[in-house]
Amino acid sequence: MYSLNVRDHFMIAHSFRGEVFGPAQRLHGATYVVDATFRREDLDADGLVVDIGLAGTTLKAVLEDLNFRNLDDETEFTGQNTTTEFLARTIFERLVAAIRDGRLGDGARGLQRVNVTLHESHVAWASFEGSV
Amino acid sequence: MYSLNVRDHFMIAHSFRGEVFGPAQRLHGATYVVDATFRREDLDADGLVVDIGLAGTTLKAVLEDLNFRNLDDETEFTGQNTTTEFLARTIFERLVAAIRDGRLGDGARGLQRVNVTLHESHVAWASFEGSV
Amino acid sequence: MYSLNVRDHFMIAHSFRGEVFGPAQRLHGATYVVDATFRREDLDADGLVVDIGLAGTTLKAVLEDLNFRNLDDETEFTGQNTTTEFLARTIFERLVAAIRDGRLGDGARGLQRVNVTLHESHVAWASFEGSV
Amino acid sequence: MYSLNVRDHFMIAHSFRGEVFGPAQRLHGATYVVDATFRREDLDADGLVVDIGLAGTTLKAVLEDLNFRNLDDETEFTGQNTTTEFLARTIFERLVAAIRDGRLGDGARGLQRVNVTLHESHVAWASFEGSV
Amino acid sequence: MYSLNVRDHFMIAHSFRGEVFGPAQRLHGATYVVDATFRREDLDADGLVVDIGLAGTTLKAVLEDLNFRNLDDETEFTGQNTTTEFLARTIFERLVAAIRDGRLGDGARGLQRVNVTLHESHVAWASFEGSV
Amino acid sequence: MYSLNVRDHFMIAHSFRGEVFGPAQRLHGATYVVDATFRREDLDADGLVVDIGLAGTTLKAVLEDLNFRNLDDETEFTGQNTTTEFLARTIFERLVAAIRDGRLGDGARGLQRVNVTLHESHVAWASFEGSV
Repeated sequence: MYSLNVRDHFMIAHSFRGEVFGPAQRLHGATYVVDATFRREDLDADGLVVDIGLAGTTLKAVLEDLNFRNLDDETEFTGQNTTTEFLARTIFERLVAAIRDGRLGDGARGLQRVNVTLHESHVAWASFEGSV
Repeated sequence: MYSLNVRDHFMIAHSFRGEVFGPAQRLHGATYVVDATFRREDLDADGLVVDIGLAGTTLKAVLEDLNFRNLDDETEFTGQNTTTEFLARTIFERLVAAIRDGRLGDGARGLQRVNVTLHESHVAWASFEGSV
Repeated sequence: MYSLNVRDHFMIAHSFRGEVFGPAQRLHGATYVVDATFRREDLDADGLVVDIGLAGTTLKAVLEDLNFRNLDDETEFTGQNTTTEFLARTIFERLVAAIRDGRLGDGARGLQRVNVTLHESHVAWASFEGSV
Repeated sequence: MYSLNVRDHFMIAHSFRGEVFGPAQRLHGATYVVDATFRREDLDADGLVVDIGLAGTTLKAVLEDLNFRNLDDETEFTGQNTTTEFLARTIFERLVAAIRDGRLGDGARGLQRVNVTLHESHVAWASFEGSV
Repeated sequence: MYSLNVRDHFMIAHSFRGEVFGPAQRLHGATYVVDATFRREDLDADGLVVDIGLAGTTLKAVLEDLNFRNLDDETEFTGQNTTTEFLARTIFERLVAAIRDGRLGDGARGLQRVNVTLHESHVAWASFEGSV
Repeated sequence: MYSLNVRDHFMIAHSFRGEVFGPAQRLHGATYVVDATFRREDLDADGLVVDIGLAGTTLKAVLEDLNFRNLDDETEFTGQNTTTEFLARTIFERLVAAIRDGRLGDGARGLQRVNVTLHESHVAWASFEGSV
């Protein structure tokens, strides 16, 4: 299996509801450094996992929709705790949609799996990996 | 598959027996920076892989039993080379026991896999991953 | 010159006022991974720059006052853009006050300089360094 | 599954052919920081994944054949774009050959999988993982 | 003293002349991960060391002039070994010129020192620091 | 001022005497990842801070004298707490001696300052910097 990873980041405010979250029930925020990893068994006709330029610009576009926002105010997340693991899956789904829409190029239609990891500090991260 | 990782560290002395270990047969030591990664297919009722606070305190408790010790003097390791890969599995087993004992909370009973990685320098690490 | 560094982190929400800040004028947030570096020409009577245990617990206490908060709501910062460089100086001043109050131990009274660096992503950080 | 990783690096020049590569069609170069990860279900008779000393010297020997070279001039790569993903597989195959030749020791014959990751910057890496 | 750092990278080919360089006399290449650090005693009118957006785009522009090139073919470097330390100073001088030209904004005219660090692998880096 | 850094590591056992050290009074150990930074105002005749090959082999030789040892048994450290800050200075002095002995080459006689940083975990490091 081949993998290719690109990294970027976004910065948001949010709060959580539920006693399990302790002080994180208060409005706070996070920088998420994001690793998007694309996987496939065989390379495309150009000998690539994916065009790394398109992978980077697509990841940046997906993160721009979240960047510098208070996620508590975003209607798409109403009633949802925007935990790191939830956001990893959200970004995964948007990258998979981009692959299917051809935004990562025709070669990218051969991608088989995507992993999205959100590093929230030097000691904690969460990820979601699934099939395209 | 969702994953969530917490990081901590411990510092021990030990020595190895066997020619394959070369100068590491002498009493020496190591800092191990430990990544404990918890995995499951679906999130718990709180929308989490595991309560990250409990994950962190449980990892710290497991490492405290080893921290600032000479592993050559610990009776539980008598006759055992405490290699990085062996210690990764030891910590894995103790985390799995903690999950089963409910020390990571009821939601954590849905955890399916755990990975424990011990970074012993900027160029070497070992890990063990298995089912809960 | 000897230096000793301890690392911790905190997570906050805030917004900025002024066109120079662009989209960061919206309420957003950040994880700051904080390096607190203590410096002196000569070691203390115990052969230390500072008791690393006290250094770590003092840094954690200073960061706890900021952690999981919306800085826009904190009266101490009213009318102030809480930029990374401003927060680096704020934490510097609180650590210097702790040194003077003896919270880092008697040996720490010999500390001469402190550097506080706030890493806000994998590509950006800011710091403040000054005399005790 | 146990894993053990050793890290080293090499520095090469090369160019790519094909419009998808944009400015990388010009002769340029890269530092590749290489992680070679060896995996197996059970440890060998010495309680190891692999002799870490032999793993490190074998990785260094494999990288030395590429180090400080212009890959465009190497006949083994004629007509081949030496992308990061291609080089990851090339190094994987050479490590697998070394395992089969006994260069990592008799215990290493029990290795089941190898992963080779090439970090080309702070934001991009590619890897290949396969069976021995 | 306040500091603010932005990070980016570039990838080049080059060779060195002189026996001291050993195998690096052959045409090879490198990825340089670049940290540009801006320093001043007091913040500007916006409470900043420098507009981080302009700092990042200026650094990227400076690196674009070098990126994906064979430095042996660049007439500005004729007869010059483009060592990591030399390149650090070259980028330093171009950033200082940008500051003086106002490309980092009016506030940046108060910058006092700049440090440029080029990381060439996980084990080596070089830097140049000087006054603006 | 130009700087050039090389990184290596060593692994030792030791214990500390004094209540301030708490559980670290027990025999334990550490991996120290070591950054040796060489500084000078002007480059040597080859356009270098120092021959990076000689810098790396000299650092490795200095660390080999400590590597895989129990520092409590080394007569040179009798009655001395081998704290991270003390070890940073010890390695600094040995590197300065090597410079003066010509082991880093004739060009290295122009070196003006050396910094030695010992990273003992992902959250703590200590350093010593002084003139040659």
